[in-house]
Amino acid sequence: MKKLINHADSVVSDALTGMAAAHEDLRVDVAAGMVRRATPPRAGKVGLVSGGGSGHEPLHTGFVGYGMLDAACPGEIFTSPAPDPIITATKAVDAGAGVLHVVKNYTGDVLNFEMAAELCADEGVRVLPVLVDDDVAVQDSLYTAGRRGTGATVFVEKIAGALAESDAPLERVAATAAEVNARSRSFGIALTSCTTPAAGKPTFDLPGSEVELGIGIHGEPGRSRAGAAPARELAAIAMDAIHGDQPLAGDLLVMVNGMGGTPLIELYIVFAEVEAYIRGRGARIVRSLVGNYVTSLDMQGFSVTVCHLSDELTGLWDAPVHTPALRWGR
Amino acid sequence: MKKLINHADSVVSDALTGMAAAHEDLRVDVAAGMVRRATPPRAGKVGLVSGGGSGHEPLHTGFVGYGMLDAACPGEIFTSPAPDPIITATKAVDAGAGVLHVVKNYTGDVLNFEMAAELCADEGVRVLPVLVDDDVAVQDSLYTAGRRGTGATVFVEKIAGALAESDAPLERVAATAAEVNARSRSFGIALTSCTTPAAGKPTFDLPGSEVELGIGIHGEPGRSRAGAAPARELAAIAMDAIHGDQPLAGDLLVMVNGMGGTPLIELYIVFAEVEAYIRGRGARIVRSLVGNYVTSLDMQGFSVTVCHLSDELTGLWDAPVHTPALRWGR
Repeated sequence: MKKLINHADSVVSDALTGMAAAHEDLRVDVAAGMVRRATPPRAGKVGLVSGGGSGHEPLHTGFVGYGMLDAACPGEIFTSPAPDPIITATKAVDAGAGVLHVVKNYTGDVLNFEMAAELCADEGVRVLPVLVDDDVAVQDSLYTAGRRGTGATVFVEKIAGALAESDAPLERVAATAAEVNARSRSFGIALTSCTTPAAGKPTFDLPGSEVELGIGIHGEPGRSRAGAAPARELAAIAMDAIHGDQPLAGDLLVMVNGMGGTPLIELYIVFAEVEAYIRGRGARIVRSLVGNYVTSLDMQGFSVTVCHLSDELTGLWDAPVHTPALRWGR
Repeated sequence: MKKLINHADSVVSDALTGMAAAHEDLRVDVAAGMVRRATPPRAGKVGLVSGGGSGHEPLHTGFVGYGMLDAACPGEIFTSPAPDPIITATKAVDAGAGVLHVVKNYTGDVLNFEMAAELCADEGVRVLPVLVDDDVAVQDSLYTAGRRGTGATVFVEKIAGALAESDAPLERVAATAAEVNARSRSFGIALTSCTTPAAGKPTFDLPGSEVELGIGIHGEPGRSRAGAAPARELAAIAMDAIHGDQPLAGDLLVMVNGMGGTPLIELYIVFAEVEAYIRGRGARIVRSLVGNYVTSLDMQGFSVTVCHLSDELTGLWDAPVHTPALRWGR
């Protein structure tokens, strides 16, 4: 294993030190494991807190800022954050209007966010959760009861974040976040395994001629394996799975996401195939992202996430955002 | 080799098809190998054209848009674009004020941009070039007489692009672009080789325990090899090379750039070390980029680029930009 790290034990804290140095509009508490906006919470604005294991950067810390998250709690690599930093973050961003927890559906995340929410409620902070479970690949998995939460997290955080900036009440922000999740589906394919710093060797063994269909973002198994195939065929496998679960129709927001080790030029090739597939089903892409947004360390591969837009959701997607990883309109 | 491609021969054209589908404010001529802004050139504004071999995405196509390039000519993988698309692009973006060619210092690029400039001049289009040669690692290399052009290209294109939006004359845009290059230094380190689609195997052999110091963005050799080391030591090697060539002082713009296959979390770890190094020399980082900007396909590794800012350059860096890969302020 060759990685740009100092020590397997300090990966997350060293990276947070880098984030603190790079982004003056963030406040990074390395010891507590929390990243929040430098500006204090604004009265009347619902706070947004997310978090989860590290190793998926820019998710979630790269999405803290105006128009998106108020705070993020990065756990250790592929490890849920403990309730304590979630409680600290929730209380720090509450300005009286309550706080939305954006929780990816992994058992550890769900438990720790629930515990944190209960303890915050005891102290008078209203918290509502939204559970993200967009991955159609498998029903249950290594770390999950039900579907896994993957790419739709970006859409939920962006759109709910925009709504929160308009001072919408907590119940409406939570309902819209849930609506984004309900309208979104994802599917991922890996060409290689990731390697965690602690293990120092690939999480799973994938022969040189095979790909993993329906991969999870921690390297947990998908539906099956297949021989390596042209991008067009791999894109069709992902899109068949998504289309089979929620038929493509109307105006779509589509993300072709890299798993961390895949070059951007390949992601654009996949996007071309995804776009042709969608056009062939009579739907159309009206908004898109192509790049690394929800990664799995150094894994090579991609995921596709499709969200069926409404006029309201399109408007919220277009609203200004200013974070390390998504930035437009200001 | 497993890659998200359809065929080794169609990598660039398939990716350009994806870019066309993803970015409605770009016009992509797949057959001609040219990407330009959808909006026609504005009278009085100097045009900016760059280009070079593909495989370094988002460079250059991802930097076409308001506040940066007017057009980019992507060649085949690691292959200079022919004069023809450069001529087409140059004439397409000229609105009477002339055109700046941003040329990375590789023999093929220099020759083909020179030839294109001469033929454009014959047709009455004024062209000035700026040569980017910021890489301190080696004096000559496989594809270069003199120093190679790498990360500073991003700074040159952003800052000269901002100046051109203000309707500065061609001579001033070219002089400022040259000033940015003169104030910038880069150094890169590879953990792994890249694999070109055509070759199908790693460009060079790098044993599991070694890294290449001073790597080029096409996998061409650097200064030497060394054993894999903590990020702190690798960052110090890169910064010693930069500091030894142009002493760090004052306010700096710093990019920690991923080579394509390195996770973002590792780039932030490197940034933390770079920042501490610079602070230790009495200089300070006032602007920064952390991410994949000038890549080498799937290579794992990083490069650091440092630019000594002036007030004018800082203001131009901060000016609005709206491209696929850099976007802020609008």
